Amino acid sequence: VESKLPDVGTTIFTTMSQLAQQHNALNLSQGFPDFDGHPYLKQRVTHYIEQGLNQYCPMSGYPALTAQIALKTQQCYQRSVDAASEVTVTSGATEALFAAIHAVVKAGDEVIVFDPAYDSYDPAIRLAGATPVHIPLAEDFSIDFALLDKHLTHKTSMIIINSPHNPTGTVLSKADMQQLEQRVIAEKLYLLSDEVYEHIIFDGEQHQSVNRFAELAKRSFIVSSFGKTFHTTGWKVGYCIAPPALTVELRKVHQYLTFCTVTPIQAALADMLAQHPEHYQQLPEFYQQKRDYLRNALVDSAFELLPCKGTYFQLVRYNKVSNKSELEFARWMTEQVGVASIPISVFYKQLTEQHLVRLCFAKNEQTIDQAAEKLCQL
Amino acid sequence: VESKLPDVGTTIFTTMSQLAQQHNALNLSQGFPDFDGHPYLKQRVTHYIEQGLNQYCPMSGYPALTAQIALKTQQCYQRSVDAASEVTVTSGATEALFAAIHAVVKAGDEVIVFDPAYDSYDPAIRLAGATPVHIPLAEDFSIDFALLDKHLTHKTSMIIINSPHNPTGTVLSKADMQQLEQRVIAEKLYLLSDEVYEHIIFDGEQHQSVNRFAELAKRSFIVSSFGKTFHTTGWKVGYCIAPPALTVELRKVHQYLTFCTVTPIQAALADMLAQHPEHYQQLPEFYQQKRDYLRNALVDSAFELLPCKGTYFQLVRYNKVSNKSELEFARWMTEQVGVASIPISVFYKQLTEQHLVRLCFAKNEQTIDQAAEKLCQL
Ligand SMILES: CSCCC(=O)C(=O)O
Ligand SMILES: CSCCC(=O)C(=O)O
Repeated sequence: VESKLPDVGTTIFTTMSQLAQQHNALNLSQGFPDFDGHPYLKQRVTHYIEQGLNQYCPMSGYPALTAQIALKTQQCYQRSVDAASEVTVTSGATEALFAAIHAVVKAGDEVIVFDPAYDSYDPAIRLAGATPVHIPLAEDFSIDFALLDKHLTHKTSMIIINSPHNPTGTVLSKADMQQLEQRVIAEKLYLLSDEVYEHIIFDGEQHQSVNRFAELAKRSFIVSSFGKTFHTTGWKVGYCIAPPALTVELRKVHQYLTFCTVTPIQAALADMLAQHPEHYQQLPEFYQQKRDYLRNALVDSAFELLPCKGTYFQLVRYNKVSNKSELEFARWMTEQVGVASIPISVFYKQLTEQHLVRLCFAKNEQTIDQAAEKLCQL
Repeated sequence: VESKLPDVGTTIFTTMSQLAQQHNALNLSQGFPDFDGHPYLKQRVTHYIEQGLNQYCPMSGYPALTAQIALKTQQCYQRSVDAASEVTVTSGATEALFAAIHAVVKAGDEVIVFDPAYDSYDPAIRLAGATPVHIPLAEDFSIDFALLDKHLTHKTSMIIINSPHNPTGTVLSKADMQQLEQRVIAEKLYLLSDEVYEHIIFDGEQHQSVNRFAELAKRSFIVSSFGKTFHTTGWKVGYCIAPPALTVELRKVHQYLTFCTVTPIQAALADMLAQHPEHYQQLPEFYQQKRDYLRNALVDSAFELLPCKGTYFQLVRYNKVSNKSELEFARWMTEQVGVASIPISVFYKQLTEQHLVRLCFAKNEQTIDQAAEKLCQL
């Protein structure tokens, strides 16, 4: 078989989770909680399954859920979106990202990706026949707009952003968004905004969702995920908000990609959003506590803790511990120390070694304690 | 927005189900049961959700489920497949079809599709930058191999087949499969075999799965679905069997398309297959009874009943009832008669009016009775 993606291996998340399992390591690599979803949410899924809500739901999403997504968008970002024509439920945010790219990116187009970038963007762009243009973020992981401007060409059709940012934990500011808005409008680009950590943002900062920028939103696909928000990554329900004309194109792809998403889970999520909006409202506090717990536990370690303003990931610099490459260090730490992490270098197109690995703190305090104890010995 | 798929509208399944709902019609259009999944299967999902199996499962599938799929393949088709390297669980068969096409079909390739064809194949091929080559089936909906041979070129890279066949209810014979095998091997093509109705085949016929043809299987992606088999179309779990080298390529796409599929449902399906293999073993009988029930109920109607050897769809010819086009007739029957169906013409690239619509008989006898009563008045 002549591969279409010869340089693509198994995603780092699978690789590291498998390695963690093989070596019985604490798994702070792949991003998922080691605690469970809300009892009410789980009970509602059970309820709908028992009730027999087990057949296809509408291709665009279960109506009660799309209505709740519209309501949440209004409440969080003061933007009115029309559930029927602007909200589409997908099989995880991953599907939404792939569908948005395939909906509008044409063969020969260029798509801007900022490195370090989540690893699904690049292959999705290439499968659409387009060229990913990788622009490194600055040393503090902010967008270098002068560098961006140098890379915009008449072929550029889309920019992909992600805030709060995986893997670095940085967030885009209002000024950043205004800068982006200028380019997107001036160059008639599409924006794909990966906002799966929209409710995991710290220190009182406000998430600068594209939903807050009316002109930008007109050219944007905004992607989010319930797996991150409700501690149920294994349920694979995400969604995409886009203006009607873009939603029409998105759904043309979505309907042939997965068609629709698990009905009883969608119905349960609708109930959860209606009955327990405090769950996502309190999420910043919930995860900030975990972030601080991990940081405190590592404060006397040899690791340097980078700032973390959002997501459930903490970057740590290990240059006082080892000279290994990030990939080698992450393997070594899994195999020899018993703590799995994610190297950052894999999220760069150009080999970039910064002695950084990512630790997931969506974990019980006991797990964090155990990991920190091991890490403090290095 | 300049559409990448300007000629693609909303899929007929969504259109007709919506129309059925608006007009309160009996919905024999979109293929899903109006009865529920097995109590044990539902109970197992509930169990795993309560137990907290709610995070990502491995990207390639929940190990107990891939093992059961391998076992079922052995038991049904006497083929040994390796669960770890040859079985991938997907978010419905739709995702598997899309991923298989994107895994190996390159820009500029040609892909053979037999019309009438399930409506996801063509756009998936085009989104891969390839050209769908539509070959009409013969009048009895068998493959015209002479016509196929005329359409094979050096650009042909894949043939897509579907048996039992949606929408016509025909099945491929052993001789058909041997003819296909010859072409696939001689021309070094890939075969994508949509076998989602593998367990819904009638009159004692044996399903000629690609799994039975060792040489053919080496170049094939075999796709199936648990939604059809377990009466749970809304759970969206399908799978793909392919040799290791093809599975590697398939997973490169799958991991960036949806990454993985709902964990507690996969675990429950594994238990169901282990504890109740009789469910799928008895499915031919179960659906044959429904087929016969519908056919009997329509025997005195003005509709001509075409042969139905598999699937849960019955084609009926309405030329004694109306001269309308199939699309107009299906709309009229939904709006005025109260029975929704699927026109067959939408599954052809070239306009083909045969006065045929498809009725889904995955319905309770009461639903079939009510529909037949209305249809017998025409
Ligand atoms: C889809 S597995 C990856 C989970 C995740 O978002 C991460 O670990 O970054
Ligand atoms: C994915 S909705 C279509 C269901 C189906 O397979 C059919 O009705 O043919």
